[in-house]
Amino acid sequence: MAPSLEKTIYIGAFVHSKSLQDLEICQKGAIGVGENGTIAFVERNVINPEALREREGWESAKTVRVGENGFFFPGFIDTHIHASQYPNAGIFGKSTLLDWLNTYTFPLESSLSSLTRAKQVYTRVVSRTLSHGTTTAAYYATVHVDSTNLLADICLSKGQRAFVGRVCMNTLSPDYYRDASVADGIRDSQACIDYIQRIDPSAELVAPIITPRFAPSCSAECLRALGALHRETGVRCQTHISENKPEIALVKELFPDSKSYADVYDAAGLLTPKMILAHAVHLTAEEVALIKARGAKISHCPASNTALTSGCAKVRELIENGITVGLGTDVSGGFSPSVLEMARQAIWVSRFVAMNDGDQAKLSTEEVLYLATRGGAKVVGLEDKVGGFEVGMDWDAQMIGLGAVPESGESNLEADDPVDIFGWESWDDRVAKWVYNGSDKSTVAVWVKGRLVHQTSRYER
Amino acid sequence: MAPSLEKTIYIGAFVHSKSLQDLEICQKGAIGVGENGTIAFVERNVINPEALREREGWESAKTVRVGENGFFFPGFIDTHIHASQYPNAGIFGKSTLLDWLNTYTFPLESSLSSLTRAKQVYTRVVSRTLSHGTTTAAYYATVHVDSTNLLADICLSKGQRAFVGRVCMNTLSPDYYRDASVADGIRDSQACIDYIQRIDPSAELVAPIITPRFAPSCSAECLRALGALHRETGVRCQTHISENKPEIALVKELFPDSKSYADVYDAAGLLTPKMILAHAVHLTAEEVALIKARGAKISHCPASNTALTSGCAKVRELIENGITVGLGTDVSGGFSPSVLEMARQAIWVSRFVAMNDGDQAKLSTEEVLYLATRGGAKVVGLEDKVGGFEVGMDWDAQMIGLGAVPESGESNLEADDPVDIFGWESWDDRVAKWVYNGSDKSTVAVWVKGRLVHQTSRYER
Repeated sequence: MAPSLEKTIYIGAFVHSKSLQDLEICQKGAIGVGENGTIAFVERNVINPEALREREGWESAKTVRVGENGFFFPGFIDTHIHASQYPNAGIFGKSTLLDWLNTYTFPLESSLSSLTRAKQVYTRVVSRTLSHGTTTAAYYATVHVDSTNLLADICLSKGQRAFVGRVCMNTLSPDYYRDASVADGIRDSQACIDYIQRIDPSAELVAPIITPRFAPSCSAECLRALGALHRETGVRCQTHISENKPEIALVKELFPDSKSYADVYDAAGLLTPKMILAHAVHLTAEEVALIKARGAKISHCPASNTALTSGCAKVRELIENGITVGLGTDVSGGFSPSVLEMARQAIWVSRFVAMNDGDQAKLSTEEVLYLATRGGAKVVGLEDKVGGFEVGMDWDAQMIGLGAVPESGESNLEADDPVDIFGWESWDDRVAKWVYNGSDKSTVAVWVKGRLVHQTSRYER
Repeated sequence: MAPSLEKTIYIGAFVHSKSLQDLEICQKGAIGVGENGTIAFVERNVINPEALREREGWESAKTVRVGENGFFFPGFIDTHIHASQYPNAGIFGKSTLLDWLNTYTFPLESSLSSLTRAKQVYTRVVSRTLSHGTTTAAYYATVHVDSTNLLADICLSKGQRAFVGRVCMNTLSPDYYRDASVADGIRDSQACIDYIQRIDPSAELVAPIITPRFAPSCSAECLRALGALHRETGVRCQTHISENKPEIALVKELFPDSKSYADVYDAAGLLTPKMILAHAVHLTAEEVALIKARGAKISHCPASNTALTSGCAKVRELIENGITVGLGTDVSGGFSPSVLEMARQAIWVSRFVAMNDGDQAKLSTEEVLYLATRGGAKVVGLEDKVGGFEVGMDWDAQMIGLGAVPESGESNLEADDPVDIFGWESWDDRVAKWVYNGSDKSTVAVWVKGRLVHQTSRYER
């Protein structure tokens, strides 16, 4: 399926998370990647890169060098993104969740019944997220089987690692956009699972994901049926939880016998280690304990929660309670398709929590980079494959190139990266400058499983 | 001084604020700009642009057209930026104001005693902010006379409208970085005022600004002497106020006889309509009333206040109390030199205030664009010259170019703007997409007083 690859040695600085607090910055690195796209060796303190070819079998390996102000970084993992909503990124006005759905979201999603439009939107969102360094994405598509399958085709063809979910919703949605019945919804979800497992049988890149939209738009019967599908197929799940207060009140009204929002999913057999819960802004202590006990994962979506005034998720508390957390753009509740922007937004949200709750709530630059990579990998169950640079893991990586300010101060600003490096900065500071001012312009090239899936004119220049 | 200009007609969509709430979007516009760089006419609903040349004297005018997905927008006004701190943009860690000053800021500012370094830094910050569409900036330099004057030279030569301030600070600062005495500080400030008024006698572009760093680093005697200088020269002033709580406590301790932080400046004769107060996060009701009574202006610096966990300024309250507010990047307490990013950050801060205080606190997209242009113009006293497109005002403008997604979804992402326009969006939505995902890439060209001061390869392509 994948094009055959050349053995390649990636030479230069690399940066990745060792743990939540520890970011490793290796200035003189070399990472060897085999024909199968996995990492064969990781060398530090490399004085003479040419000597690396003395390894048996690596004599004729290709080399890729990163520039002086650049580094290799693991590809980002977007644990929650609505591919179908991408055209609305930035369009939200002063709305909040429930009116936002009816005003902006359902009409757009519904229009993706057209395969022509689905192709335009999905081609763009996959290319665009790759250009921002997203090598893995957990996508929501729409209720439509054919266009959901098309999204999986596009991910596979462009080489993005993805979980692709047909959205299930059988109630409290517009007449023009919902499953006709629970049985229809399950049949259509099964059809997408079958298709995606057929085009990528070993789930090398693309896998299906069971996707109840959220409790308010699924009946108890629908949720139980999806729980059964999850149990029978072993396919991963994703949904939303506890995003804003009117939504929580609505869930209480719709499921009066449930102990909590989290309990609604638990009762349906959906709260398992393979479940990704997006948002989790207003969880009670009991819900946190239940989610921890079941091993479900949380996708923190800071941009969306801020833009829609949903609230500030208390990420420090979640982490300290032993819950696995990653970052999600939640396009288009979230306005940006960039996980780097989410890392920044996670910092801002943690600052706002700190203003009320105290300094311990603050996340550090190192911590949000962990959430964007290793944390996200755990959320989607790929922590042995992606999120860092270890022997045996896949080469899902991005080459970051920052700018260099000459002594005159003058250069071609358009050609340069907008992250201005003056030359005296420590490596820690260079990484911080990238985190706070980097953009797609800084992402010079992107690989997934060893395959070059995005490059700019600065690559190998 | 300025290069002579050709009469030019700018043809296509333009967008600007009519008032705080009302953004005018004119799809078929034409704006004529004379040789002196001021706007001679503004036409709406232009069916036949060629007919515009029938005006007497405009027969041979040059035309500049904006592309289909683009528009002209007033240049941004950055009402608070430390040019000298630009190399530290993005470097702040988990620090808060007072430790941030000692750890990051004073050592960098001090190093700009070197004219070589000052040239590198100031050249870059002026070019970089122009590339982000900042046509007017209120700059802090450092305590050094020569490098402050160099900043003014660079602004003049690159064509950026600027207020350039030598920083006054005679106490509670490191020994290596402060004025030796009040008399020395006044003499040096006067020297910069004289120099800047000499290089631009009618303040067409560049003007001096009296700059006490902030109350904690100026003695009462120093502040009074600067108040006298302000009264004698009529030169505008800028300083900081009420940024974070330990700072406010320190001011109370240092000025035990003052009724408030604002009163410290008022007692020194510095609280006048020509004063720009940056931050204003934790003002009391009495201070708001005093600032309103004196007509002093406020620079809202949302990125900085969030990054340094200073707090959330209550902008809605300030505006409703009749205070004039603009936006400031506050580089490098603020991590970004982009006023567009500040518009977004002002939205986020208003959302966080709303989470505690209720929905009325939310600022709209239209409101933050007003703050970034007309509001900022009022803060720096240039509301009759810049901030909007009116006959008699100067052509301080940026050409915005957004991307276009073809039906295939495929195009050269690097060459395109990252703001993806699918074609069905309303003009309101196009502007929103720019506000939330735009960057320097969207700013195709920039003019100040009719002079083209920045352009990218997309200009006239």
